[in-house]
Amino acid sequence: MKKIFILSDGTGQSGIDVLRAALVQFHDSPVTFTIHSRVETRERVKELLIDAKKKDAFVAFTFVKKDIRDYVHQYCLRHHIVHFDILGPIIRILSSYLGVAPLEKAALLRKVDERYFRRIEAIEFSIVHDDGKSIERLDAADIIIVGLSRTSKTPTSFFLAQQGYKVVNIPITPPLALPDALFETDQGKIVCLQMEPEVLQKVRLARLHHAHTSDNTYTNLKRIYEEAEHVEELLRKHRQWKVVNTTNKSVEETSREIIDFVIGKDVVI
Amino acid sequence: MKKIFILSDGTGQSGIDVLRAALVQFHDSPVTFTIHSRVETRERVKELLIDAKKKDAFVAFTFVKKDIRDYVHQYCLRHHIVHFDILGPIIRILSSYLGVAPLEKAALLRKVDERYFRRIEAIEFSIVHDDGKSIERLDAADIIIVGLSRTSKTPTSFFLAQQGYKVVNIPITPPLALPDALFETDQGKIVCLQMEPEVLQKVRLARLHHAHTSDNTYTNLKRIYEEAEHVEELLRKHRQWKVVNTTNKSVEETSREIIDFVIGKDVVI
Repeated sequence: MKKIFILSDGTGQSGIDVLRAALVQFHDSPVTFTIHSRVETRERVKELLIDAKKKDAFVAFTFVKKDIRDYVHQYCLRHHIVHFDILGPIIRILSSYLGVAPLEKAALLRKVDERYFRRIEAIEFSIVHDDGKSIERLDAADIIIVGLSRTSKTPTSFFLAQQGYKVVNIPITPPLALPDALFETDQGKIVCLQMEPEVLQKVRLARLHHAHTSDNTYTNLKRIYEEAEHVEELLRKHRQWKVVNTTNKSVEETSREIIDFVIGKDVVI
Repeated sequence: MKKIFILSDGTGQSGIDVLRAALVQFHDSPVTFTIHSRVETRERVKELLIDAKKKDAFVAFTFVKKDIRDYVHQYCLRHHIVHFDILGPIIRILSSYLGVAPLEKAALLRKVDERYFRRIEAIEFSIVHDDGKSIERLDAADIIIVGLSRTSKTPTSFFLAQQGYKVVNIPITPPLALPDALFETDQGKIVCLQMEPEVLQKVRLARLHHAHTSDNTYTNLKRIYEEAEHVEELLRKHRQWKVVNTTNKSVEETSREIIDFVIGKDVVI
């Protein structure tokens, strides 16, 4: 089995993110990952590279210190280890574009600052307002998501919350009406998730399988069509709502479309 | 103000991830971001590059199709636009390492598959088990987090849940005892978050400020010391628990340490 080592003087998270994105392009290749975070000395780097060589592993690394990057590169060249520097090239080119030298400090992720609090607040807000549990403070929400059961509301809300957006998500459960407050708040931040009935049925069936329960009406295609028709009718009445089709879409894609719609293309990252 | 464009035939998320990691190395440089996702034609690419040139923007891109990457590269060279290919180089080298040609299909993120369900289940599990709200199904948790109020339990739980781990988090609120069930489950998956009292006070003060409420005892340093002593005593009694010091640590760093401790360095990404 092919092995990928991620070496980092931080968490290695950007290495994980990039490798995940790249690896879906080779989806049938089984690979195992080993993450070595907070690797801070040359001695430790060397130990790990010796291990990588022995296992014929691919070494991807995210070191913010240039001398460690250079050391890894030289060592790998000399010992014929396939390696890839994830942060070095982008730091180099950003430095030249911004006209500023990099700090080269590991673990510079924003700690107890505004961004940190915004993110925590967003997560806590979104927990309280998940699945229609509370519709208080609708006006404080950045984004309001509505949709039938299993159209991806919860995972999408939490992906958005991680990025600092306060999300309320409210299930559409016909024949029950949506809460009045929803129609009284800013309609420009409401997004309705839709999914093709056949795919929604598949998701619900898989969900039941995972939850080890059964509920025939919930996965009955005729009933799902009726639910979908109810949503269509809502959308005809509320043309200001944005619609995102989540059929066969990843949570990341759905979230990106929602941000584009509600927040716009210019964002703080 | 410097501008960074992220162009992508997918969500651009890996571009965002890498730029975020690289940019903390230049933390005083104000930059605005514009994310253009699902850019699928050369015509659209060209429009955006013309705009980038006009604004003297840096163009980072994550296209999985090689011909689009080459087109962007050539266009930028010809028009002197600073640009950076985030996925191209790693896809190229992975292809050679794995001995497999890349699929070059955009939006290949895992849809309705095992991984998708695992992640959704983990998020839903972690919502139900946040902040001691439920301690049912402790045995089903992958990770159990305990700690004083504001030591980062909730954001850490949700960062871990996004990665597919089911997390229970339980607050330590002296003089109340922790639930008996905690001591009857696998002690190897319990992680206690600790924070230096002075920093914890700062976080609690900032939190009160954000929440627009006030509670003097909660932020009283003497009381925080007593709480911390209570935690020390718990740790002396339960030596199997892992301890992660979250003082000045990002949620990503804390999560990585927890994964290292409880799950190990070999992971599915």
